[in-house]
Amino acid sequence: MENAMLTLIQSRTSYRGPYASTPVPRADLAAILAAGLSAPSGCNKQTVSLVAANDPALLTKLKAAIDPPIFPTAPAVIFVLSRPVNAYRDKCFAVQDYAAAIENMLLAIRALGYESCWYEGHITDDDRIDLKLAALLGVPKEYRVVCALPVGKALEPPRPAPKKPYAERAWFNAFDGEEAF
Amino acid sequence: MENAMLTLIQSRTSYRGPYASTPVPRADLAAILAAGLSAPSGCNKQTVSLVAANDPALLTKLKAAIDPPIFPTAPAVIFVLSRPVNAYRDKCFAVQDYAAAIENMLLAIRALGYESCWYEGHITDDDRIDLKLAALLGVPKEYRVVCALPVGKALEPPRPAPKKPYAERAWFNAFDGEEAF
Repeated sequence: MENAMLTLIQSRTSYRGPYASTPVPRADLAAILAAGLSAPSGCNKQTVSLVAANDPALLTKLKAAIDPPIFPTAPAVIFVLSRPVNAYRDKCFAVQDYAAAIENMLLAIRALGYESCWYEGHITDDDRIDLKLAALLGVPKEYRVVCALPVGKALEPPRPAPKKPYAERAWFNAFDGEEAF
Repeated sequence: MENAMLTLIQSRTSYRGPYASTPVPRADLAAILAAGLSAPSGCNKQTVSLVAANDPALLTKLKAAIDPPIFPTAPAVIFVLSRPVNAYRDKCFAVQDYAAAIENMLLAIRALGYESCWYEGHITDDDRIDLKLAALLGVPKEYRVVCALPVGKALEPPRPAPKKPYAERAWFNAFDGEEAF
């Protein structure tokens, strides 16, 4: 189990290709949502909420609001909502909270045999697609739609992003210190 | 394997109790670092670097810099460094990047039989303990020390944080929409 878990974490990649039209079973989507909600949050403020969209008519409207299109063939999409409240004094960890929830969901998606990609800048950029999505999903004003995660079976093999050698990014006991890899 | 992964994600909790003094094998720390570095990053900017501290003399100094103490008995601590560069235009995803890397490491730590806790506000608060840690670790000025993750065998059972029912935080097809749980 241990190695399988580490292998899964290391093998996860972003998938931007086409998806099969096969619906994602409701139970699988619920398991992915539960993985997201089980992430830690700063001072346990639980600032993240989630909406899984799998209704075909709704999905068509949501996808139409995203121009240029980013996941036109995905049979389901999970929208990540963030309520940016302070954890204490003026300290807000809402970004950390939703990023941890997203990473959990990306891993759960891969563990269940699906692919996904973290789409954030596409919807929160200056054209504010997030506001159109929020309106379609009935999201209250205290929440922001910060991310969309497609979920589906990939029709093409995922292509891992090129990365710097790990030896240039991690060490033991000092920055640029003892070799870890 | 699939269920084991989801169970691991759902069972992870923050551990704030005492650790056994048993050293963490170097290979296990390296595997945890690799899990962190395999997280996605906005526009693949790879803004996260990591330092695992397991040298006893160094650890003593690092722990002494953290007042009040937060993990006095941990036999190893991973420090998360962030280089807050823009992914495009004025958009910076460095917080998302390191939060995803931290969540990967928390899961890898648990998968290998250890416990941990996400300590961020403790070191980045107004007393700027992060600056003392950066000096001890030789971290260049372009990087911030944003988080410390203890790693070790727990001496007490972890206590899960109380959480809102998932049904109050996730739905299908609308905010407060169809029941997911």
